[in-house]
Amino acid sequence: MISVMQKHFGNASSVHSFGREAKRVVNGARDRLAAALGCKPEELVFTAGGTESDNLALFGTMHAQKSRGKHIVTTAIEHHAVLHSCQQLERDGFEVTYLPVDRTGRVHAEQVAEALRPDTFLVSVMFGNNEVGTLQPIIEIGEMIRSTGRDIVFHVDAVQALGAVPIHCNELPVDLISFSSHKINGPQGVGALYIRKQRMIEPILHGGLQEKKRRAGTENMAGIVGFAKAAEIAVSGLSERREHDLKLRSALLSNLERTVGSEHFRVNGNQEFYLPHIVNISFPEMQTETMLMNLDMEGIAVASGSACTSGSLEPSHVLEAMNLPQNLLRSAIRFSFGLGNTSEEIEYTAEKVGTILTRLRKKI
Amino acid sequence: MISVMQKHFGNASSVHSFGREAKRVVNGARDRLAAALGCKPEELVFTAGGTESDNLALFGTMHAQKSRGKHIVTTAIEHHAVLHSCQQLERDGFEVTYLPVDRTGRVHAEQVAEALRPDTFLVSVMFGNNEVGTLQPIIEIGEMIRSTGRDIVFHVDAVQALGAVPIHCNELPVDLISFSSHKINGPQGVGALYIRKQRMIEPILHGGLQEKKRRAGTENMAGIVGFAKAAEIAVSGLSERREHDLKLRSALLSNLERTVGSEHFRVNGNQEFYLPHIVNISFPEMQTETMLMNLDMEGIAVASGSACTSGSLEPSHVLEAMNLPQNLLRSAIRFSFGLGNTSEEIEYTAEKVGTILTRLRKKI
Repeated sequence: MISVMQKHFGNASSVHSFGREAKRVVNGARDRLAAALGCKPEELVFTAGGTESDNLALFGTMHAQKSRGKHIVTTAIEHHAVLHSCQQLERDGFEVTYLPVDRTGRVHAEQVAEALRPDTFLVSVMFGNNEVGTLQPIIEIGEMIRSTGRDIVFHVDAVQALGAVPIHCNELPVDLISFSSHKINGPQGVGALYIRKQRMIEPILHGGLQEKKRRAGTENMAGIVGFAKAAEIAVSGLSERREHDLKLRSALLSNLERTVGSEHFRVNGNQEFYLPHIVNISFPEMQTETMLMNLDMEGIAVASGSACTSGSLEPSHVLEAMNLPQNLLRSAIRFSFGLGNTSEEIEYTAEKVGTILTRLRKKI
Repeated sequence: MISVMQKHFGNASSVHSFGREAKRVVNGARDRLAAALGCKPEELVFTAGGTESDNLALFGTMHAQKSRGKHIVTTAIEHHAVLHSCQQLERDGFEVTYLPVDRTGRVHAEQVAEALRPDTFLVSVMFGNNEVGTLQPIIEIGEMIRSTGRDIVFHVDAVQALGAVPIHCNELPVDLISFSSHKINGPQGVGALYIRKQRMIEPILHGGLQEKKRRAGTENMAGIVGFAKAAEIAVSGLSERREHDLKLRSALLSNLERTVGSEHFRVNGNQEFYLPHIVNISFPEMQTETMLMNLDMEGIAVASGSACTSGSLEPSHVLEAMNLPQNLLRSAIRFSFGLGNTSEEIEYTAEKVGTILTRLRKKI
């Protein structure tokens, strides 16, 4: 990225040699990202991040659909980039079915099948949930949709899943897939939408002819190069990373059993189908905010849910959809393992959670 | 930017200390950008660039307007980020008046006044044109709109004007102003929309609560910091830069008189109200593409119009709107002076233009 920022001043859409050089840089990155994601370079549209990718998938499909369908199927536990886009589509006259999830945060292909209506034109289900880590049965849902033989677009938000589970776009029965760079340690402000070759979308940002007329705006060369590099690293190191994350996860849970006691916490989310780097745990004796604040003072960065909703005082819509009882809902903490986290840090975290809980208990 | 990328891994929307530190970085940059642009920090929404800023201004105003107006006034020479957004709005049922311009590319406040209808809710006129440099009478138009006492939003695309002419947002009779970072030598992929305090817009990217609910998506911290720094440098060095650009402009024209002969070229655009760093010149004896290609081979990067339309074979919509005769329309070259361009480079350019024209004449 530094080299691109220092050496390439061209606009990738200009025709002179500086522009053509910039174009080569952008398309080289597109080739590498496509190889990492298992798709063709022309199936990728660079965006400004996961949110724009989700918005482009939903609004772009809405504008492009020929059948003039009015109905969308999604789930209650999507990221707000999907949910709030769906709410905007409802204000615009569309109808949206928000499928409930089971207690582990999982939706089932049969539910999607039952929700389909003659005017359904879009199904959007996330790959892995960002707050509780639960994986959705994307392949089953995609195959079910294909088996109907109908022209229904299937969008998957894989923002949180990329780098944590294997994703080969062309082998998935999916039409559109959202990705974000900063979720895999790439730069902020860049993302991509995979658009399967036969699928058409209309742009949501109008202007120049960039990205084969699918996304106007001068290409963010450094961001694109950084994203491609981050994806290469994430995908090539996936199994190692996965093993590492699973070790940290298991260490966190076993250490908490020791420092907190298994009767004082509960793991939220699915225990079979989950992203290895996210574990959501309720400590019913302490409200989320108190725990967050106390852990923060110990240098431990955890979250109540999504950073995108951190300005809100509402409890997590994901945990609510999972029908968590109030005491678990109000005491949930999202632990996410990042690149470079160590077993020692996990042990330290479990110790501190134990200390904080004990200190609070004593005070009462 | 490098320091931000290497040291700040937080998400500016997270509540833990890493997130709060990231927030401080973003808001520090916002404060500096606001100071450079003459507005309050909360009047700035960071976007992914000029195109998104224009789209947010138009679609965001459309969604937010209470009066349910159906009519928009703009000009025929806007950037495509405005024009193509207007065309999308027409497809959505809105009506748009595209004001013609005079032969110098200028629109007049009286034209805007005459175009206003009872259902007009938005006027969008660019500050300075990116292809010919012509400045628009923004203040006159804004004061005319205010004098009507009506609730009409006035948007100005200042993407090309920033850093070239003084812009103090709060002192202009304007509601929304679009800016882009890479146009002032800042990073690509970041921009801003100024939104006057009393004005409301609805987001066009739906999701998280970022930017006071006006633009969802994780903040592009490094991009924002780079943009603010670039704006500080551009604004503090404005008069020096202006003087430098005017010197280059004058040198280009006088050198061309010597190397090409004043009867063999014509300057397009307004000779009184213009951006100092852009000069559009037709050489009627040679088609645009031939001149571009030959100058490119000499290491000189000039353009036919906008990079955003370089994939198109159509002649420039700006020059067409100025009613240029075919021979001038088909032979126009946009010269833009960038940071670091020297008088020697201008002299070299004029020499090469002369050589290329002579070579071609001899061949015929």
